Amino acid sequence: MKLSKKNLDQQLDRVYDVIIVGGGIGGLSAAIYLQRYRLSCLVIEKGKGRSFWMQDVTNYLGLHPHTAGRSVLQQGQDHALAVGADHLRGYVEDVTDEGETFAVKVKLGKQDSSLPVFRSKYLIAASGIIDTLPQLEDMQNVFEYAGYNLHVCLICDGYEMADTKCGLFVGSEGAINTAFVLNWFTPYVTVFTNGQVEVSEEMRQKLQDHGYPLVETPIKKFLGHDHEMTGVELTDGSTVDLQTGLISMGSMYHDDYLRDISLERNGNNIITDSMCRTSHDRIFAVGDIKEGINQVSIAVADGTLAATAIWREIRRASPPRRWEENLIGVKS
Amino acid sequence: MKLSKKNLDQQLDRVYDVIIVGGGIGGLSAAIYLQRYRLSCLVIEKGKGRSFWMQDVTNYLGLHPHTAGRSVLQQGQDHALAVGADHLRGYVEDVTDEGETFAVKVKLGKQDSSLPVFRSKYLIAASGIIDTLPQLEDMQNVFEYAGYNLHVCLICDGYEMADTKCGLFVGSEGAINTAFVLNWFTPYVTVFTNGQVEVSEEMRQKLQDHGYPLVETPIKKFLGHDHEMTGVELTDGSTVDLQTGLISMGSMYHDDYLRDISLERNGNNIITDSMCRTSHDRIFAVGDIKEGINQVSIAVADGTLAATAIWREIRRASPPRRWEENLIGVKS
Repeated sequence: MKLSKKNLDQQLDRVYDVIIVGGGIGGLSAAIYLQRYRLSCLVIEKGKGRSFWMQDVTNYLGLHPHTAGRSVLQQGQDHALAVGADHLRGYVEDVTDEGETFAVKVKLGKQDSSLPVFRSKYLIAASGIIDTLPQLEDMQNVFEYAGYNLHVCLICDGYEMADTKCGLFVGSEGAINTAFVLNWFTPYVTVFTNGQVEVSEEMRQKLQDHGYPLVETPIKKFLGHDHEMTGVELTDGSTVDLQTGLISMGSMYHDDYLRDISLERNGNNIITDSMCRTSHDRIFAVGDIKEGINQVSIAVADGTLAATAIWREIRRASPPRRWEENLIGVKS
Repeated sequence: MKLSKKNLDQQLDRVYDVIIVGGGIGGLSAAIYLQRYRLSCLVIEKGKGRSFWMQDVTNYLGLHPHTAGRSVLQQGQDHALAVGADHLRGYVEDVTDEGETFAVKVKLGKQDSSLPVFRSKYLIAASGIIDTLPQLEDMQNVFEYAGYNLHVCLICDGYEMADTKCGLFVGSEGAINTAFVLNWFTPYVTVFTNGQVEVSEEMRQKLQDHGYPLVETPIKKFLGHDHEMTGVELTDGSTVDLQTGLISMGSMYHDDYLRDISLERNGNNIITDSMCRTSHDRIFAVGDIKEGINQVSIAVADGTLAATAIWREIRRASPPRRWEENLIGVKS
C-alpha cells in the first residue's frame, strides 16, 4: 500500500519484518522477493536516485535496450505494491538499533515536515549513490546532456562511446586513469580537469604517451542540442568538438542515516557477504552502496539474495504450522 | 548473426573470445555484456531449457509478473544478436581444452547431422538443469500442468501455493523434507511418492507430527482442465483433491560436454568464485548449473559477472590503442 501522511498512523504501531531504505532497483527487487516470501516490508524512497536518470537501460536481459530507468522503477514499484509491500515517499533521517528492532525516523514533506518513526526487525540499505557532475555556472546545461551521450558509467556505456571522440571529465588525478580503461572502447580521448585538478608530471607523460590531449582550462558550458552533446566551450572562448563524454568525478553515498551504526567498509562501499549481509547481523546492503559492480543486474540479484537470507532466518526461527483437520484458513 | 548449416563455414576458422554453452537466461545475459565489452561470442543453444517452460516469470524486476519465460528468452536473444553475438541452434557434444583455446564440437540437425568444431579462448557453461518430472504412463498429462499450478520451484512459486491444498511429489526420501519448508507457505501438504520411495519410520513420524498425509499408491494421472491441476487419480481408483502441486524430484544437469574437464563441484553444482569463474581459469559457469540459488535474477547477474571478469582479463593483456592524429577509424 502506498503510505502518505494521511494513512501512515496505523503502520506506526507495527513491526515490519524489513524496512528497505531506498526504492531503487535493489530495494524494489528485495521488496518483491520479501513479499513473495510472505514477509512484510516497507520501502522508503526519497526519489530521483541513480537509475531514475538513466535514459536507456541498455544491458539488462528481458528489457528492450531503449527502456528508460524510470520505466523500470515504475514497473518494479507497481510489482512490489501488487504483492503487498508498503511504499512511502520520504527521506530517512536516522536509524537507531534498538536490539531486537530498528527505529527508522523518516522526514515527510518539505514544508510542515513530520518525522514519524517506523520499526522493523531487519534493515536493508538500498540507498545507493549519485554521480558527482561537473559544477558549471548553469547546471541546467549539464543536466541537458548527462545520462544521454554524456555518460557516467563506463561499464554501462563504453559500448556507446566506441571509436568516438570522447571527453573524459575528471575530478581528481586518480580519475584520469579511467582514460586508460576507456581506451579499450576508444583511443580518441580528451581529458578535461575543469581547472580543478593538479596533474603530476608523471600523469602528463602517461597522457602524452597515449596521445591524449589534457585540457585544464575551465569549462564554460557543454555545446549541443536536443540532449546530444557535441563539444565543450572553455572559458577562454575556445571550443573542443566531441561526440560523447564520460564523467568520472566520484559519487555521493546516500548513507547519512547509518552514521550511528558502524559497518565494515572498503572506502565508502559497505562490505557484505555472499548473501548481501553486512557486518551487522540484521543489516543487509544491496546495489551501488555495497562493494561490487554497479549494475542494474547486480542490484536485482542483490535484492534476491538479501530477501532470501532474511526469509531463511525468520523461517527457521518460526514454529511449523500444523494441518488443522478442518482446513481453517485454506484458500477456496 | 544467426548461424546455421548454410552460413557457419566462415566462423570455423576464427577463434571467438568466448563460446557460451546454453542460450538461456545466464548465457544470453553474458552474451549481451560480452558484446557490449566489444568481445566476440558464440551462443550455442539446444532449445527448450528450464526458463522456456516458465509460464510466468513472477519475481524479476522490470517485467510484468505475467511475462512468459519464452518471451524473456526471445527478447534476450534479439538483444544479443543486435549487439553482434553469433547464435547457433545445436547441441554441444564435446569440449576439448587445447591449452590456449577450447575446441567445441556441436551436433547440428537431427537427421544428416553434421559436427562442426568452433574455437574460443574462454568457455562459459550456461547449460543449466532441467527438473525431473513424475514419470506417468501419459506424459502429456504431466506436461499439461507442469509449469502452471504444478510448480517445480519453491522459491519462485511458494507465494502462489500459499494456504492452498498442495501436493508435494517426491522422488526420494530426502526430498520429503521440502514439505517442512513448504510449510512456511502452506500447512495443507499431502506427500506423494508415486510408489517409488522407501519411507523410514522416522520420516513417517515427522509427517504425522505435522499432520501431513503420505500417499504411497502410484499415481495414474493428474486431474484438471485448461492447465489447472485440481487433484490426482491413483492407480487404485481413488482421488485426492488439490489446488496446487510442487514437484521435488531433483534435476538433470546438462553438462555431458564437460566430461573430460575436471571442475570442482558440490554435488552436481559447479563451484565458482564471486565472478563465476570455475576451478579452471578459462571456464566460467553461470545460472542453475553452478552452486547458488536457481533464479532468473541470479543467472542474469552471473552473466554480468562472468563477462566482466573475462573482459578485464583480456583488456589488461591487450596493448593500448594510441590516438592517431588523423583519427583513423573514428566514427563519423
